[in-house]
Amino acid sequence: MPKIEPRTLSGFMELLPNEQILFNQMKEKIQKTYERFGFLPLDTPIIESAEVLLAKAGGETEKQIYRFQKGDNDLALRFDLTVPLAKYVAKNYGSLSFPFRRYQIGKVYRGERAQKGRYREFYQCDIDIIGDGELDLINDAEMPSIIYSIFKELGFDDFTIKINNRKILNGLFEGVNQKDNSTEILRIIDKIEKIGKESVIEELRKLSVEEDQIKFIMNFIEIDGTSDEKLEKLESLGINNETYKNGVEELKSVIKNVRLFGVPEENFKVDLTIARGLDYYTGTVYETFLNNYRELGSVCSGGRYENLAEYYTDKSLPGVGISIGLTRLFYKLNELNIIKADKKSISDILIIPITENLEEPIKLATEIRSLGINTEIYLNDKKLKAKFKYADKLEIPYVIVIGDDEIKNHKIKLKDMKTGEEKEINMDAKEIKIAIS
Amino acid sequence: MPKIEPRTLSGFMELLPNEQILFNQMKEKIQKTYERFGFLPLDTPIIESAEVLLAKAGGETEKQIYRFQKGDNDLALRFDLTVPLAKYVAKNYGSLSFPFRRYQIGKVYRGERAQKGRYREFYQCDIDIIGDGELDLINDAEMPSIIYSIFKELGFDDFTIKINNRKILNGLFEGVNQKDNSTEILRIIDKIEKIGKESVIEELRKLSVEEDQIKFIMNFIEIDGTSDEKLEKLESLGINNETYKNGVEELKSVIKNVRLFGVPEENFKVDLTIARGLDYYTGTVYETFLNNYRELGSVCSGGRYENLAEYYTDKSLPGVGISIGLTRLFYKLNELNIIKADKKSISDILIIPITENLEEPIKLATEIRSLGINTEIYLNDKKLKAKFKYADKLEIPYVIVIGDDEIKNHKIKLKDMKTGEEKEINMDAKEIKIAIS
Repeated sequence: MPKIEPRTLSGFMELLPNEQILFNQMKEKIQKTYERFGFLPLDTPIIESAEVLLAKAGGETEKQIYRFQKGDNDLALRFDLTVPLAKYVAKNYGSLSFPFRRYQIGKVYRGERAQKGRYREFYQCDIDIIGDGELDLINDAEMPSIIYSIFKELGFDDFTIKINNRKILNGLFEGVNQKDNSTEILRIIDKIEKIGKESVIEELRKLSVEEDQIKFIMNFIEIDGTSDEKLEKLESLGINNETYKNGVEELKSVIKNVRLFGVPEENFKVDLTIARGLDYYTGTVYETFLNNYRELGSVCSGGRYENLAEYYTDKSLPGVGISIGLTRLFYKLNELNIIKADKKSISDILIIPITENLEEPIKLATEIRSLGINTEIYLNDKKLKAKFKYADKLEIPYVIVIGDDEIKNHKIKLKDMKTGEEKEINMDAKEIKIAIS
Repeated sequence: MPKIEPRTLSGFMELLPNEQILFNQMKEKIQKTYERFGFLPLDTPIIESAEVLLAKAGGETEKQIYRFQKGDNDLALRFDLTVPLAKYVAKNYGSLSFPFRRYQIGKVYRGERAQKGRYREFYQCDIDIIGDGELDLINDAEMPSIIYSIFKELGFDDFTIKINNRKILNGLFEGVNQKDNSTEILRIIDKIEKIGKESVIEELRKLSVEEDQIKFIMNFIEIDGTSDEKLEKLESLGINNETYKNGVEELKSVIKNVRLFGVPEENFKVDLTIARGLDYYTGTVYETFLNNYRELGSVCSGGRYENLAEYYTDKSLPGVGISIGLTRLFYKLNELNIIKADKKSISDILIIPITENLEEPIKLATEIRSLGINTEIYLNDKKLKAKFKYADKLEIPYVIVIGDDEIKNHKIKLKDMKTGEEKEINMDAKEIKIAIS
């Protein structure tokens, strides 16, 4: 029979089991942290009506989208988790409790040009808090504490959550009569980390921003010092624009409360260059950087928005949220070999029977499992060496070989596969549990 | 602004949070049980090249598939988890350890005619054990013990895992010279649970099976008694066909070992009418029925197959596996209101601050979380009554109100939302943990 080549599409991550175990641990840690803060789970369809999904989209997004017909239906695959959330909240408004705190961890699809480390199918891990009509600013201060918990949980210490407020920048541009250009200027400033100061100035010039305005803007975003010093400078500039003043007040309050939420000083700071892309965010914005791995870019970003679902409903639904692009993050961390694994295998114990009497080995496995320990029985007829090689390749930490003698004497040898050490103990699930913990 | 109706496509499940919590608990129990037996996680792309995905498909499947072009690529959404597994094993053959035990829990897509309780996007929860060239029959006996563990874990006691062997039926048809018709006859017999005996006979007649052969077949599949009595009768029929004899031997061995794996007598039985669809399975087959809810049909099915990946590789890869269609199962159980919830909320505790001093409530929340308890702080400025209503609607079991007095005296009242009872204890995370457990 002619064979078809078993290939996976480029831009789609498919891991070997040992990598998948690491990936799942990261995913589970993020999920557990979101739940620890009381976020409710949500799981929306991957396919939506194109009309619904593209209500707001345009430009790049629309080009990248997977869109197709099925029967008479014009369908599309979700390209983020925010639009499905907006649809969901608008649709179920009457059934939800507000503030609605939800997390969603799921795959999204963007038909980008495939390149190393860029994915067409990737996991986003999102939380959002949606208010009904209003949402207190203190919610903006809780987000960094959740980001902090997650990256600590993932084993990182040296990371910085950068915080800014879009109103400050918007007000500033209004002040220098660049309000019409503000989206474009924000987009340029947002790239400073990536393209550098000189290129930012170059791009501002192309936009016909005048030299003294460029100088003013650059001076502004280079305001330095501690977070408190920056906040003080922002206030002392004497800018009289209302949006600006409002933004400074908000940022001040958020920073104060981020401290209250217990985020250590070294893990957050005011950064006036953070703008977060285009027109979505309207207040607080966040980006997160692993300081030893700046090349990863922001590993967790988000912000405050005025209205989640204006394309679907008249209801005012302000919100604040963050998102982790897990697939890309995993790819990079895995490449750098810096993922801290809790365990490298699924099975904690491999039981190898070398007897016709399978009753006792199976009974023991069942008892060990009932104590919450993942236990596998090697059931195939291979040489003992092959069975140990199997445990070795799967990095299963403990092996128990059970033959007729072990059954007769009710004693087994528990082999630690890392040290090679063997320990003789009773053939008893509880004793085995103690011995491996 | 004109609004777009925020609708979800028909045939796509989208749950409210309280239902999503139940769904996730079921999913997690299945996953944890699979891991408890040492199955490795796998997560393949939802989109594959149509050529790869449809290597084997035909007929109904091909009609139902979501297939579309993106650029020059002919793409399709996976319609099960078996074909992606076959591709994966063929592709990564050299990197895997055999027997390869993997689980995958993920969404699959079939553009079926939408009707109540039928889904176009649904979760499958699969495990398979794949051998390299051979796979011992004892693996077929482990599967029912995993099915047993899962449904016990899901809170069911009265269920039956029905076990048969395709070789018995195949051999039987060879014996009555109906080998060419055997696939068709199996398909008809498979429906006996659904359409009844008379309709089966009717359909066999339409197939031009002779009356005495029909009688022979019907007598056969109606062989009754205990599993052991059935096995004995199968042997005593004196059928001399090799396939048949081989099948009886295998079934006997599997039943013996299912007992060894600790599945209680009342939870499994030989059922000679189980055939499992078309041409995929070649040996042992399983179906699982909740006896008080027969209308659900089989809730977990599977079997042994000779060759997983023949469309991709010359390697012989025999396997055995089971699958749970979780979305439909959840829908039915939820409709019947018989899902046993471990907990009905994500948050275990809601802290309601009624003070300007947020430092203490936040500190307490952080400490409670560090003990593994999901804790939410109500951060919005509402009347106390509205805050309690929020806890009530979300079915959060405990509420702690913290005002200035509580902070001063370092005492809080822990309110049990179910009983209304209030308990005064120290404002201390550990004491709170003890009080709620």
